[in-house]
Amino acid sequence: MGESLKGLKRTSMCGVLKEENIGNEFTVMGWVQRKRNLGGLIFIDLRDRTGIVQAVFGEKINQEAFEKADNVKPEYCIAVKGTLVKRQSVNNEIPTGMVELKGEYIKVFSESETPPIYIKENLDAAENIRLKYRYLDLRRPDMQRIFKIRHKTAKVIRDFMDKEGFLEMETPILTKSTPEGARDYLVPSRNFPGKFYALPQSPQLFKQLLMVSGYDRYFQIAKCFRDEDLRANRQPEFTQVDMELSFVEEDDIIELNERLIKKIFKEISGIDVKLPIARMPYKVAMEKYGSDKPDLRFGMEINDITDIVSDMDFRVFKGAIESGGSVRAIKVENCAKMGRKQIDKLVEFVKDYGAKGLVWIANRDDGIKSSISKFLKQDKIDAIFEKLNAKVGDLILIAADKNKIVFQSLGALRVHMAKETGILSDNHEFKFVWITEFPLLSYNEDEKRYQAEHHPFTMPMDEDIQYLESDPGRVRAKAYDIVLNGEELGGGSIRIHDTELQQKMFEVLGFTDESAWERFGFLLQAFKYGPPPHGGLAYGFDRMIMFLAGTENIKDVITFPKNQNAFCPMSEAPNVVDDIQLQELNIDVKHK
Amino acid sequence: MGESLKGLKRTSMCGVLKEENIGNEFTVMGWVQRKRNLGGLIFIDLRDRTGIVQAVFGEKINQEAFEKADNVKPEYCIAVKGTLVKRQSVNNEIPTGMVELKGEYIKVFSESETPPIYIKENLDAAENIRLKYRYLDLRRPDMQRIFKIRHKTAKVIRDFMDKEGFLEMETPILTKSTPEGARDYLVPSRNFPGKFYALPQSPQLFKQLLMVSGYDRYFQIAKCFRDEDLRANRQPEFTQVDMELSFVEEDDIIELNERLIKKIFKEISGIDVKLPIARMPYKVAMEKYGSDKPDLRFGMEINDITDIVSDMDFRVFKGAIESGGSVRAIKVENCAKMGRKQIDKLVEFVKDYGAKGLVWIANRDDGIKSSISKFLKQDKIDAIFEKLNAKVGDLILIAADKNKIVFQSLGALRVHMAKETGILSDNHEFKFVWITEFPLLSYNEDEKRYQAEHHPFTMPMDEDIQYLESDPGRVRAKAYDIVLNGEELGGGSIRIHDTELQQKMFEVLGFTDESAWERFGFLLQAFKYGPPPHGGLAYGFDRMIMFLAGTENIKDVITFPKNQNAFCPMSEAPNVVDDIQLQELNIDVKHK
Repeated sequence: MGESLKGLKRTSMCGVLKEENIGNEFTVMGWVQRKRNLGGLIFIDLRDRTGIVQAVFGEKINQEAFEKADNVKPEYCIAVKGTLVKRQSVNNEIPTGMVELKGEYIKVFSESETPPIYIKENLDAAENIRLKYRYLDLRRPDMQRIFKIRHKTAKVIRDFMDKEGFLEMETPILTKSTPEGARDYLVPSRNFPGKFYALPQSPQLFKQLLMVSGYDRYFQIAKCFRDEDLRANRQPEFTQVDMELSFVEEDDIIELNERLIKKIFKEISGIDVKLPIARMPYKVAMEKYGSDKPDLRFGMEINDITDIVSDMDFRVFKGAIESGGSVRAIKVENCAKMGRKQIDKLVEFVKDYGAKGLVWIANRDDGIKSSISKFLKQDKIDAIFEKLNAKVGDLILIAADKNKIVFQSLGALRVHMAKETGILSDNHEFKFVWITEFPLLSYNEDEKRYQAEHHPFTMPMDEDIQYLESDPGRVRAKAYDIVLNGEELGGGSIRIHDTELQQKMFEVLGFTDESAWERFGFLLQAFKYGPPPHGGLAYGFDRMIMFLAGTENIKDVITFPKNQNAFCPMSEAPNVVDDIQLQELNIDVKHK
Repeated sequence: MGESLKGLKRTSMCGVLKEENIGNEFTVMGWVQRKRNLGGLIFIDLRDRTGIVQAVFGEKINQEAFEKADNVKPEYCIAVKGTLVKRQSVNNEIPTGMVELKGEYIKVFSESETPPIYIKENLDAAENIRLKYRYLDLRRPDMQRIFKIRHKTAKVIRDFMDKEGFLEMETPILTKSTPEGARDYLVPSRNFPGKFYALPQSPQLFKQLLMVSGYDRYFQIAKCFRDEDLRANRQPEFTQVDMELSFVEEDDIIELNERLIKKIFKEISGIDVKLPIARMPYKVAMEKYGSDKPDLRFGMEINDITDIVSDMDFRVFKGAIESGGSVRAIKVENCAKMGRKQIDKLVEFVKDYGAKGLVWIANRDDGIKSSISKFLKQDKIDAIFEKLNAKVGDLILIAADKNKIVFQSLGALRVHMAKETGILSDNHEFKFVWITEFPLLSYNEDEKRYQAEHHPFTMPMDEDIQYLESDPGRVRAKAYDIVLNGEELGGGSIRIHDTELQQKMFEVLGFTDESAWERFGFLLQAFKYGPPPHGGLAYGFDRMIMFLAGTENIKDVITFPKNQNAFCPMSEAPNVVDDIQLQELNIDVKHK
């Protein structure tokens, strides 16, 4: 039977014992990392949240402790009491490597079976095993480091927001499904048969209401939910750092958030973020990087070569230009010698992004090679090389199509080539950029109508309001994303606070009064009573922690994550429930 | 059309302007509390989160601003720019009452219809109207005060926990229903037809797993959910301050939490909580106060008079004593003259608590009156009065039954009489007490078996483990509740970390191995790998805020609460959803 504390007090954590503590008696508690029995002496590495300390047991130190230590196995939970002494053979790999505890007393709180995964850094175990035994996976020092970072980051954010006059306010988890809420998780109501709550995809409506209520500066580290097919780095429940401010404009929100970002990255990772962070209009981001989340750690910008090639007698280019598209190129340095098979793979790669093909020109030291040699005269080659500043050894990759396809193909190719060529492998930069001036609306070809890019409460830019009815696609929004190394860290907008403008917005979106009311009734009602100018921003907290912890797997930053099927291999949720529960909720399962 | 900021910057909040700021120009923004037009002058009280400041507009100050001010109505959202001047007629009721803004410029951000409720302190409006227009209710200064307290309390708690080495860790909201989880909210799974997630009633299992994982000190301000018929001061979603610690015993947890409580009440309410807080075993609390949440702000303790009355020839007393019960009494001071009708109401009152009746003795200045005069001899009266130290004017109320009924009746009556007699009306004390040594198990008469009072992982007291099989009802638990003024503020326990003891516990509870596994499988599995000694505590955060804010209505401390039917009159959640959503979830509604 396992022992109890019965008055035994821990007097130190394991990982903090140092030479200056030598000569003092300590009681430490934790888990056996490993045990070595060298005949007369037994060495135990004892691990807790702070690290490892070695304890040594010998017949001459204490006979009873020695015998007990001999029965101990890895992951047993124990206490060791003893005097700290200088270690005979120093271990420079751990901070406590100069000292060890002379084990005079040992208590075994609980035994352990052999764990199905190793409790060590950088474990290379199958993900389903790690998730099934998550409580053991979470014992690993790299996981513990991540959750310390997560705790500390939340603390830094809360301290900052508090100082800046924000109130943290909790908004409901049991709320209403919006008619467009196809990805809502639903909760059947017991009191109202046939009715459902929905879990919020974000606190958006509630935080706007809190502005109407005069709370002036709201924030929340909030759980959000989205029932979508999980891609990598998506989880059905995720965490947002959500904020909303009254009586502010874009610059105010950006300035505040720059200071927040600087503080987080400095305090957690020791990184100096230089302020102000660069801003880039959406249009520029698309044209130069083919993406609204450009990775600015490397160049390889997209160049428009339409003018150069417009008079070429090459069907693909001609067709693209005639249909209103363009011809654009990126330059990949030192890749001119890339083999035909590798280039064919790139052609396949861009097809996933809608491109029909890829033209290439290799500036090799043994001459120019190209997929379109026969169409390509020297003057065109010279002009293209000059435009892209191509040197010997460089490879030019060209796409020709509608702009949208050109951008998304070359944008993805650019990132792909950066990975393939390894130019980011030793790069530890954090390149932030604000993307601004997003389009307010996008045209839905299927439904033949405009739809809101963000949400229908986003404020148009003042100078574009005039086009709202005449040329909706031209209207830019007071919206901004903060992008880090090619990933969206957060985003937000200024909201419409004017009823007439909101009305016009709904008309452009093709909502009738009735359908607008059905969708957003209580917010519209609230806006009848003096809404203030307001705007906000929300960060993906999980993604932020991934950056700060240096992991690319969202499951590493969530205590008990779900797998790709939204299933938890540990708790086995979701699972069947008692029929009586379903009866009470007045629902039937259609086919089991 | 409402105006926009267009570069206008707020330079001060309303409620902070003071005499020392006189002569400077300020721009303030907020809502019109009221407007008075005195002909040549218009006075506007402008309100924001910090308070109210008066702005004065005149034709001579600025003609345009004066005209604009004239069109403003209550709850319009506006900006006012002007010079701060000394006020002609001082208003001592507000902090800015010495000053006013000379309104040189005004901007109207948005208009307001006449609000359906008054925006003022201590509103006496129907609750359903307040909830329907919650965004207006939340504008009221007393509500804003509460949410500032709520924010600050969470901040104080987090600062404290962080300093004490706790990590805040988020546990899942989408988790597994336990077979006893009859009050779980369920969430149908789209990926696994016929299976459901459940929303957690508490993070209990997960926080114990985090101890197994070696996180040592966990806390979380966590949303919890319970689908039960709502009594007053219950909400379907509520917030817990939840913590768990490894390598600790009861005293460690109590000591830490006393420091936390002291800090909270000092920083939020300026109240000095004297430490250590008194501790009272459950048995004493029941015998003296008839409750495990005794209100210690007043006496009126229960006295056992069984010995005194045991030889009386009164059927009710005799019957109670013979069936193993007792006869007990409380003394209500200055109530001897209570009328017959009022006393009859008390008899009705205790019937709700299972008592069949109530015996009374009134020590009136014109003699003794009693409901059992003919059975009551003078020596008995003298003995009872002596035992209860009864003076002239006092009323003795006596219950005779099984102990359980006597306790709960007199316990409730004691609190009822305190309210009725108003002895607490001027009492602003905060009387804390730890209730300890709770029974580990209680006998379920219906199911003829013992069940866990808290949960089946609660550790028995060391000296009582020996009775676990022979006399389970006698075993006390290492469990503790912190009680404030008769309400449970929080509670917790030391958990079992030993597999054998846990096994024995399940046997006593009548679980087979299989049923225990089905219920708590992943926790039992985790406990095979060296669980540490651990324990914890959870506070009801909403109730804590109610105490700190001085409100008795839980809806006052939740931003967007549900009503008694778990319905939100504002968002109208729960509500119907699209059939297509139900199809995707593979469920049918039985009858709408």
